[in-house]
Amino acid sequence: MTRILTGITSNNTPHLGNILGAIAPAIELSKQPNSESFFFIADLHSLISQKNAALRVDSVNAIAATWLAFGFDTQKNVFYRQSRVPQVCELTWYLNCFTPYPMLANAHSFKDKSGKLSDVNSGLFTYPVLMAADILLYDAHFVPVGKDQIQHLEITCDIAAAFNHQYGKEIFVLPKAKIDEQVMTIPGIDGQKMSKSYNNFINIFLPEKELKKVVMSIVSDSTPLEAPKNPDTDNTFALYKVIASKEQSETMRQNYLKGGYGYGHAKTALYELILDTYKEPRNEFDRLMKNTSLLEKELQTGEAKASKIADEKLKQVREVLGF
Amino acid sequence: MTRILTGITSNNTPHLGNILGAIAPAIELSKQPNSESFFFIADLHSLISQKNAALRVDSVNAIAATWLAFGFDTQKNVFYRQSRVPQVCELTWYLNCFTPYPMLANAHSFKDKSGKLSDVNSGLFTYPVLMAADILLYDAHFVPVGKDQIQHLEITCDIAAAFNHQYGKEIFVLPKAKIDEQVMTIPGIDGQKMSKSYNNFINIFLPEKELKKVVMSIVSDSTPLEAPKNPDTDNTFALYKVIASKEQSETMRQNYLKGGYGYGHAKTALYELILDTYKEPRNEFDRLMKNTSLLEKELQTGEAKASKIADEKLKQVREVLGF
Repeated sequence: MTRILTGITSNNTPHLGNILGAIAPAIELSKQPNSESFFFIADLHSLISQKNAALRVDSVNAIAATWLAFGFDTQKNVFYRQSRVPQVCELTWYLNCFTPYPMLANAHSFKDKSGKLSDVNSGLFTYPVLMAADILLYDAHFVPVGKDQIQHLEITCDIAAAFNHQYGKEIFVLPKAKIDEQVMTIPGIDGQKMSKSYNNFINIFLPEKELKKVVMSIVSDSTPLEAPKNPDTDNTFALYKVIASKEQSETMRQNYLKGGYGYGHAKTALYELILDTYKEPRNEFDRLMKNTSLLEKELQTGEAKASKIADEKLKQVREVLGF
Repeated sequence: MTRILTGITSNNTPHLGNILGAIAPAIELSKQPNSESFFFIADLHSLISQKNAALRVDSVNAIAATWLAFGFDTQKNVFYRQSRVPQVCELTWYLNCFTPYPMLANAHSFKDKSGKLSDVNSGLFTYPVLMAADILLYDAHFVPVGKDQIQHLEITCDIAAAFNHQYGKEIFVLPKAKIDEQVMTIPGIDGQKMSKSYNNFINIFLPEKELKKVVMSIVSDSTPLEAPKNPDTDNTFALYKVIASKEQSETMRQNYLKGGYGYGHAKTALYELILDTYKEPRNEFDRLMKNTSLLEKELQTGEAKASKIADEKLKQVREVLGF
C-alpha cells in the first residue's frame, strides 16, 4: 500500500489556482488503487504567519469543505487537521536534535526572508523540521511537491537518514518527491500567477453577485468593443481556457478574432462557465459550511486513524531514543 | 500557592557539585509552606547532546533516585519526566511562532557554539523555546537559576509577554528568576569548579572501593608528609570543608598547619566523611536503583498530576489560537 501525503496550510479559502493546481490533481491521485492518501490541513504551520484565531478556523473549515466538495474519499484515505494529531510536535522535537543548524539556515524559506530577520520567527526557521515530522510520522512514500518544496523534502530525507543511521534501523521511510512537471499555473485576474499574496485570486465559492464582481474586475486592455482582439494576451481568455472544453475555447477564440465581441461579453461567459462547471462543488461547499458539524465528524474520523498510526510510529521512535 | 520549577538535564548521575549546588537547595526550598515545587528530569533537552538511549535511561533513573534519596516530598510536590508530559512539545511549537529568530540567535547557549555551527543542531538553537514551554505550561512563579540561565528566563518572559499581548489576555504567568547569590561553587578533584564536562567530579553514590579511588585521586602538591601545609590552597581541604562541620574543618586546618599530616590522611578523612555524611542517601539510592519500578511508580504519579495541569493550560492556549 503506497502512502501519499499532502498538506495545505490554512491561510485562506482555497482559490481557483489552488483547486486546479493542487487540490484536483491530489484528489485524482488519491483514487489510485493500492494507495492511501493522507491529506491534512496544516494549521500548525499557519500559526507562523496567521495569528488570528477566527480566520484560522474559517480557513480550516473552508479547506475541509473544498476537499469534500471536490469528492475526496475520506473512507479510503486519511483526512485530518495537523493540530489534532499533536504527536507531530513531539516528533518535531526529536527531529530537531538530528537537524544541523546550517541545513535550516540554508533553506530557501528562511534565506528569502533573511533580509528582514526581525520579521522571522522561530516557527518559520524550523518549519522544515515540522514538515519532516508531518511526513515521517506516517511513513509517507510519496509527497507531491511544487518546485519550491523540493529542498524541504531533501531536508526531510537528510534528517530521516541521519536518524536511521544513528540507530542502525530503518525507523523512518525516506519519502520521494512527486514533482508534477505539467502542473498547471493558473493566471490571476491581473495576469500574474493566481496567488493569495498577489490578491489576484478567484474564490469560486463566493455568492453569485460577489463572484460576478470579481470576474468583472479581470484586468483587460482598452481595445474597443468593435475591434478584433488578441485572445493570447488577454487575461479573461487565459482563465476561460483552463476551465472550458476545447470547443468552448475555440468558439471564444473566434469571437475575439472576428471583433464585435467585448471583454464584458467574455467575462460574462467566464462567470457563467464557472457557475456551470462548479455548480455541484459550490452547493456542497455551502451545505458543509452551513453545517460545520459535518466537517467536524469527517475530520474526527480521519484524526482517529491518523492518531493510531502516529502513536505506533512514536512508540518505535521513543524506544530507540530511550524515552 | 507559589509554584517553583526546577529541571535537571539527564546527562549523567548527579555528582557532589550538583547535589550541594542545586539539588539540596531546591529540596530545601520545596519544603516551604504554601508552595509547590515542580521538579522535572529534562530528558527531552538531553537529546540535544546525548543520543545514546541506555545512558539516557540510566541518567533519568539516577536523577530520580537522587532526589528521592535526598528527601524530595513527591506528595507535596510534582515530580516528573519531561518526556512523559509531551504536551510541552505542542506548546513549544506554538511558542516558536511567537519567538523572534534574532532572540535565539543572540542567546549565549547558541553564540558560545557558533564558532562551529556544523556541530549545532536545531534542538540546541531552539532550546530556549522548549525551556519557555517547560515553565509556562505550569504557570511557574519562580525558577531558581544560575547566572548562565538568566538570559533564557528573560527569553521566556519576552515570549510570554508577546503571546499575552497578542491575545489581550494573561494566558501565561511571567516567571521570576530566583538567583541564589550565595550559591556554593563546589571545587572538583583538580580544583576547578566541579563539572561533568571537566571530568573532575565525585559521584557520592559509587561503591566504596571506587569512591575511595576517586577521592584518593584528588590533585595535591608534593609537600612532604612531615612539612606544614597550606589548607587554603589544597583541593582536598577545599572539598572537606564544604561537607564538614566547623569543628571538623578547624581540626583539619590545624593538622595541615602543624605538619606531620599527609594528603593521604586528609583524603582518607574526606572519604570517611562522605561515607558518614551520605550514609542514608547512599543506601536509599542503591535500594531505588535496584528497584527501578519504585522510581517508575513515583514518577508516574507525578506525571499524572503534571499532565492534568498541562492539559488545562493547553486548552486555554488552543482556544485563543483557534485550534
